Amino acid sequence: MSPTLTLLFVIFCLLCAMTLASDPDPVQDYCIPNPKLGVIKTPLHTFLPCKNSSEATTDDFVFSGMKVAGNFTDTGLAAISVNPTIFPGINTLGMSFVRADLNVGGINPPHFHPRATEISHIVQGSVYSGFVDSTNRVFARVIEQGEVMVFPRGLVHFQMNVGKKPATIFGSFNSQNPGMQKIPSAIFGSGINDQLLEKAFGLSSKQIGTMRRRFDPRRVRF
Amino acid sequence: MSPTLTLLFVIFCLLCAMTLASDPDPVQDYCIPNPKLGVIKTPLHTFLPCKNSSEATTDDFVFSGMKVAGNFTDTGLAAISVNPTIFPGINTLGMSFVRADLNVGGINPPHFHPRATEISHIVQGSVYSGFVDSTNRVFARVIEQGEVMVFPRGLVHFQMNVGKKPATIFGSFNSQNPGMQKIPSAIFGSGINDQLLEKAFGLSSKQIGTMRRRFDPRRVRF
Amino acid sequence: MSPTLTLLFVIFCLLCAMTLASDPDPVQDYCIPNPKLGVIKTPLHTFLPCKNSSEATTDDFVFSGMKVAGNFTDTGLAAISVNPTIFPGINTLGMSFVRADLNVGGINPPHFHPRATEISHIVQGSVYSGFVDSTNRVFARVIEQGEVMVFPRGLVHFQMNVGKKPATIFGSFNSQNPGMQKIPSAIFGSGINDQLLEKAFGLSSKQIGTMRRRFDPRRVRF
Amino acid sequence: MSPTLTLLFVIFCLLCAMTLASDPDPVQDYCIPNPKLGVIKTPLHTFLPCKNSSEATTDDFVFSGMKVAGNFTDTGLAAISVNPTIFPGINTLGMSFVRADLNVGGINPPHFHPRATEISHIVQGSVYSGFVDSTNRVFARVIEQGEVMVFPRGLVHFQMNVGKKPATIFGSFNSQNPGMQKIPSAIFGSGINDQLLEKAFGLSSKQIGTMRRRFDPRRVRF
Amino acid sequence: MSPTLTLLFVIFCLLCAMTLASDPDPVQDYCIPNPKLGVIKTPLHTFLPCKNSSEATTDDFVFSGMKVAGNFTDTGLAAISVNPTIFPGINTLGMSFVRADLNVGGINPPHFHPRATEISHIVQGSVYSGFVDSTNRVFARVIEQGEVMVFPRGLVHFQMNVGKKPATIFGSFNSQNPGMQKIPSAIFGSGINDQLLEKAFGLSSKQIGTMRRRFDPRRVRF
Amino acid sequence: MSPTLTLLFVIFCLLCAMTLASDPDPVQDYCIPNPKLGVIKTPLHTFLPCKNSSEATTDDFVFSGMKVAGNFTDTGLAAISVNPTIFPGINTLGMSFVRADLNVGGINPPHFHPRATEISHIVQGSVYSGFVDSTNRVFARVIEQGEVMVFPRGLVHFQMNVGKKPATIFGSFNSQNPGMQKIPSAIFGSGINDQLLEKAFGLSSKQIGTMRRRFDPRRVRF
Repeated sequence: MSPTLTLLFVIFCLLCAMTLASDPDPVQDYCIPNPKLGVIKTPLHTFLPCKNSSEATTDDFVFSGMKVAGNFTDTGLAAISVNPTIFPGINTLGMSFVRADLNVGGINPPHFHPRATEISHIVQGSVYSGFVDSTNRVFARVIEQGEVMVFPRGLVHFQMNVGKKPATIFGSFNSQNPGMQKIPSAIFGSGINDQLLEKAFGLSSKQIGTMRRRFDPRRVRF
Repeated sequence: MSPTLTLLFVIFCLLCAMTLASDPDPVQDYCIPNPKLGVIKTPLHTFLPCKNSSEATTDDFVFSGMKVAGNFTDTGLAAISVNPTIFPGINTLGMSFVRADLNVGGINPPHFHPRATEISHIVQGSVYSGFVDSTNRVFARVIEQGEVMVFPRGLVHFQMNVGKKPATIFGSFNSQNPGMQKIPSAIFGSGINDQLLEKAFGLSSKQIGTMRRRFDPRRVRF
Repeated sequence: MSPTLTLLFVIFCLLCAMTLASDPDPVQDYCIPNPKLGVIKTPLHTFLPCKNSSEATTDDFVFSGMKVAGNFTDTGLAAISVNPTIFPGINTLGMSFVRADLNVGGINPPHFHPRATEISHIVQGSVYSGFVDSTNRVFARVIEQGEVMVFPRGLVHFQMNVGKKPATIFGSFNSQNPGMQKIPSAIFGSGINDQLLEKAFGLSSKQIGTMRRRFDPRRVRF
Repeated sequence: MSPTLTLLFVIFCLLCAMTLASDPDPVQDYCIPNPKLGVIKTPLHTFLPCKNSSEATTDDFVFSGMKVAGNFTDTGLAAISVNPTIFPGINTLGMSFVRADLNVGGINPPHFHPRATEISHIVQGSVYSGFVDSTNRVFARVIEQGEVMVFPRGLVHFQMNVGKKPATIFGSFNSQNPGMQKIPSAIFGSGINDQLLEKAFGLSSKQIGTMRRRFDPRRVRF
Repeated sequence: MSPTLTLLFVIFCLLCAMTLASDPDPVQDYCIPNPKLGVIKTPLHTFLPCKNSSEATTDDFVFSGMKVAGNFTDTGLAAISVNPTIFPGINTLGMSFVRADLNVGGINPPHFHPRATEISHIVQGSVYSGFVDSTNRVFARVIEQGEVMVFPRGLVHFQMNVGKKPATIFGSFNSQNPGMQKIPSAIFGSGINDQLLEKAFGLSSKQIGTMRRRFDPRRVRF
Repeated sequence: MSPTLTLLFVIFCLLCAMTLASDPDPVQDYCIPNPKLGVIKTPLHTFLPCKNSSEATTDDFVFSGMKVAGNFTDTGLAAISVNPTIFPGINTLGMSFVRADLNVGGINPPHFHPRATEISHIVQGSVYSGFVDSTNRVFARVIEQGEVMVFPRGLVHFQMNVGKKPATIFGSFNSQNPGMQKIPSAIFGSGINDQLLEKAFGLSSKQIGTMRRRFDPRRVRF
C-alpha cells in the first residue's frame, strides 16, 4: 500500500470515529461497512468503509457468531458483544446485542451501559438479576428461562447464575454502541488517585493497594 | 365512582395518550404505571397511571408472561407483543419486545413497524427470514437457532418456519411502541377504494372483492 | 483522474453514505454539497462533497426543478422527489419535499415512508386521499385545492385523481430522506418466497406468478 | 361548570402545556385532541383533550381553513399559521405549516422560527426571499411560482412581493410548534431597557422612543 | 382539600412523572410549574403544576439559591443540584446545573450521571478532577480557577480539593435531570447480594459486611 | 504537501463539515480531533482530524484558555466562545460554553442562539439580563454574582453591566455549536434589501443608510 493510501486510511479511520459519533434516526435504509476495503483497528473500535448498497447481501444482515458461548473470565462469564464492528449490518440502525453465558455460580459484576437501556432475556438457566436506582434501592430477584428483565439506561446492574446448570442470556440495547463500565475494574483497576479512593470507600492505603493489584489491567482477564 | 372522577379518568386517559406520544431519552430512572389506580382501555392502548417510585418493586421490571407460546393464527403464527401496556416497567425506556412462535410451515406475513428497528433472535428452529429495501431488493435466507437477523426501521419483512419442528423467535425493538402494519389486511381488509386497488395491483373488480372477503376484519383472526 | 483519486472518491462515497446516516438537529447553519468536486452515484443515492460555506450562493438554497410536472408512470403519476441529491441546500436540515401530479383517474399506489410524516397540500385538483392506521382503519376522502392532509409517519397512504382535470400535489416531509416502499412492487416485484406470499395473501401459485410478472422490476416503470 | 371541574380544566390546561413540551418521534400512530371536551385558551396556546382513537375521523386529518387568504396586516402580509390548535390531526407528528399571502409590495418582516427549518413553496407570484446566516451573509433573490426556498432552522429570514399581483406562499416546518420572533416588534415593541437598545443600535434616546411608539403592542396589529 | 382534589393531585403527580419522562427539543418557549397550585412530593421528585404563560415572571427564570455553599457531607462535599424541582424555569429546556463546594481535602466520590455530559467550571480553588473511560483509562489532573473539564455522558468521574482553601465548582448538564449514582453507596449501601459482591470485588464475607455497615443508608449522610 | 494530499484535506474538511452536522446522543465515550494531522480552516469553522482514542490525554479534556477576559468590542463586551474548534475534547458531547466579560456599562446586544438553551451564571458583577418570548414579552432584571438566568432555546436575549466594576459571566449551552445571530448586525449589517427594511422598521431610506454604515461589516468589530 502506498504512503498516500496509508495516510488515507488513517484519516479514514479518524473520520469514521467521528461519523459514528451519533445514534439518531437513520436517514437511509441501512449502511453496511465494506470488509473488502480493509479493516481499520483502533484500541476501542474496528472500522470498515461502507458498501455500495447494491453490493449488500443477505448475509450482511445475519449474525451467526454467537451460536455457542464465548470464552469465560475468572468470574465465570462469557460475553459476546455484538456491535457494528463484528455485525456490520446493524450500523446506523440504533440497536446492538450481547450473548452472555454464566457458569454455575458465575457472575456478571456490577456494571452499567452509559448509552442504552438493556432488555435481558433468559434463554436458559436461573439467574439472580438486578439493578440499583438513583436512590440506591436494589431491584433484584432470580429470573428463569423465558423471563425478561429490563435494566434502565445508565443504571448499575449485575447477574449471578444461581441454578445448577450453565445459564444463557440474550441482551439487546437501544444503541449501536451502548458502552460499558465494570465497577470493580473501572474503580480499582484504572489508576484513580489512592487518597481519593481511600476517602471514598473508607479503606486504608494498604487495602486500596490490595484492590489495585487484584484489578491490575496487566493481570486481570475481563 | 362519581361523575367527576369518571370524567377525571376519561381526561386522564386522553392525557396519557398524549403523554406517551414520544420515544426520547428518559429524564428519570423509570416510570411504572400503577395498576391499583385502575386500567383505562382504549381500542388501541390500555393506560395505567404511574406508580410513586418508592412503590416500585422488582416484579415491575420482570416480565414472565411469555414462557410459553401465545395463541396461533390461521397462518401458524403466535405472537406475544410486549409493550408498556402489559409490561409497565419498560415505560419511557425506549424499548419493547415480542415472542413469536411459528408452527411447521407457519408464516409471519409481510409487515413492517413504522417506529422501530427489530433485532430478531432465533431461539429455536429454522426460519426463512427477510426484508425488502427501498429499491425492492429482497434480503432473505433461512436462519437457524442462535442466529440473529436485523430488520431496519420501517422496512417490510416476513418469516416462515421451514424446519421440521416449531420455531421460536425473540424480537426486540428500539421503541416502546413500534407499531405494526400487516400488508395483506392493511391493504385488502381496511376499506381502501376498490378502483384504486384495482389500478394499483392490476386486479379485476371481482378479484379485489375476493381479497376483501378474505381479509374482512369481521372474519379474519390476526 | 488518477487511481488514487478514484479510490479516494470511492471511499468518499462510502463515507458520505455513513455521514448522511442521521436526521438530527443540525449543529451548523447549513452544509451544501459541492458539485464542482464531482458527483458520486450509487444505486440509492448520489453524493456530493460539501462546499466551503463562504462559497455558498443564494441559488444553493432555491430549488427550481419542479415548475412543471415530471414523467408519468403507467398509473398516471408523475413524482419529483426533492432530497439533498438534487437540492443540496436542504442537506442536514431535516426536511425534503415532493411534487406529485396525477392524470385524470391517475393513482399514487398504496405506499409509505419509513422515516417521515408527510404534509400533503393540494395545489390543484380533486384528490381522493387517505391512509390506513395500525388497526387497519382507513381514513380517506376527496380533498380539494387549498386543502391539506397529513399522513402520519410510517403509515400506508394512497391518492387518486377523481376530478376532471390533472391534479398537482406538494408534499413535504420531516426527514431529508424519508424513504419509500410502494406496496405492490415491494411485495410482488421484489422476489419474496412464493410459498410465503401464497399463504400470506391466500392466492394460488398461478395467481402469485401473474402478480410477479406484472410487477417484474425489469418490466415495470415506476 | 362546577368549581371542581373548572379547576380540573385549569390543571388540565397546565398539563397540556407540559405534555406538549417535546417534538420527538411519535410512539403511536396519531393523537387527536377532542373538541367535544371543551376548548382551553391561554395567551399562547389553545389546548384540547385527546380523542379516543376509535373516534378519530377522516376530517381530523384534513385541514380546510386556508383555501383563501387570511387578514392582511399593515405591511401587506396575511398569514394563517396551522398548528395543532387549529389542525388537531398533526398533534405529535412533528410538522406544521403556514399559508402566507403578500399584497403587491407587501412584506413579511425579518423574523425567525426558534424550533424549525422552513420549506417555502411559492404557489403564486414573484417573491424576493432570503435569510441571514451566522456570519451575517445574506442569501436572497426573487423566486417565482413553483420554486422553493429553504430557511435553515433558527436563522432570520424575510420576504417581499416584488411582482405585479398578489403572492401566495405555502411554508412547512419540521416542528408542530416552530415558534416565531418578528425582529422589529420583538426588539422595539417588547420593553427591553432603553439604554441597552441605544447602545446596541447606536440610536439616540429620542429615536428609540419613536421606534417604541411605532411598535407599541397596544397599537400595532401583527 | 376535598378528597376529589386530593385524588386529582395524586393523579396529577403521576402524570407529571410520566410527562417529564423525556428530554427532547422543546415545542414551546418555556413551561414553568406553578407553585400556587401546590407542591407534590415523591421520594425521587417534587412536582409542580405548570403556570399559564401570561403569569410567568422574570423571577421564574432566575435562580438565586446557590450564592453560598450548601451543607457539607462527611467527605467534605457540599452540592446544590439545581433541576426543575427547585428552579422551575428550566423545565423542558434540556439543561440543569450544580454548585459543588469542597473543603480542603474534601472529595466528590466516584460517581456518574446516566443521562448527561457535564461541563465542570472551577470558580475557585485547585481541584484534582478526572474520569474513567470504557477501557478503564483514567484522565485526571489538577485544574485551577478559570479552567474547565468535561466529563462525557455516563462515565465515572471524581474530584478532590488539593488546594489550601475551599474550592467552588459550577457544573452544567445537557439534561434537566441528569441523574446520579455514587459508586460507594450504590454498590455497598444498596443491598446487592453479598455473594455476588464477594466474587465481584474479591473480598471476604467479613470485608463486605464492613463495607455494608459503612455505607448503610440509615447511617450515611450523602 | 503533494497535490493529492492537498485535495485529500480539502475533501476531508468538507467531510468534517458534513460529519459534524448533528448534535445527538454520542455513540462512543468521546472523539478528540487530532492537531498533529493539521488544522483545516474554513470561514466558519476550523476542523481537526480525530485522534486514536489511545492517544487522548487528560489535557484534551481540560480547557485553560479563558482564565482571563478576551478582547473587548466597542460595546464593552469580551466573549470567548468555546466550541470543539478550540476545545477538541467536547466534540460530539452535546455541550459548549462561553466566558463573557462586560466593562462597566458594557452591553451584549440583543442576539439569539438558533440551536441551544443557555444557562448564564454570573461569576462576578451586577448584570441586567433578559430575554423576549414569542409574544414579545420581556423577562429582564438585574442579577448578581452567584445567580443564574436561563435563556430558552432560540429566543432573543441581552445583557448590560449595570454595576460599578467589570462583570464576568459563564454561559453553557446544550449544543456543541449553538450558533449566534446578533440582531443589529444581522439586520443592518448584512445586506437585506433596503426597501424591505424601510417597510419593516418604518424608517426612511436615509435612516436605513445610516444604520447600514454603522453596522457595515468592513467597519464594525464584533
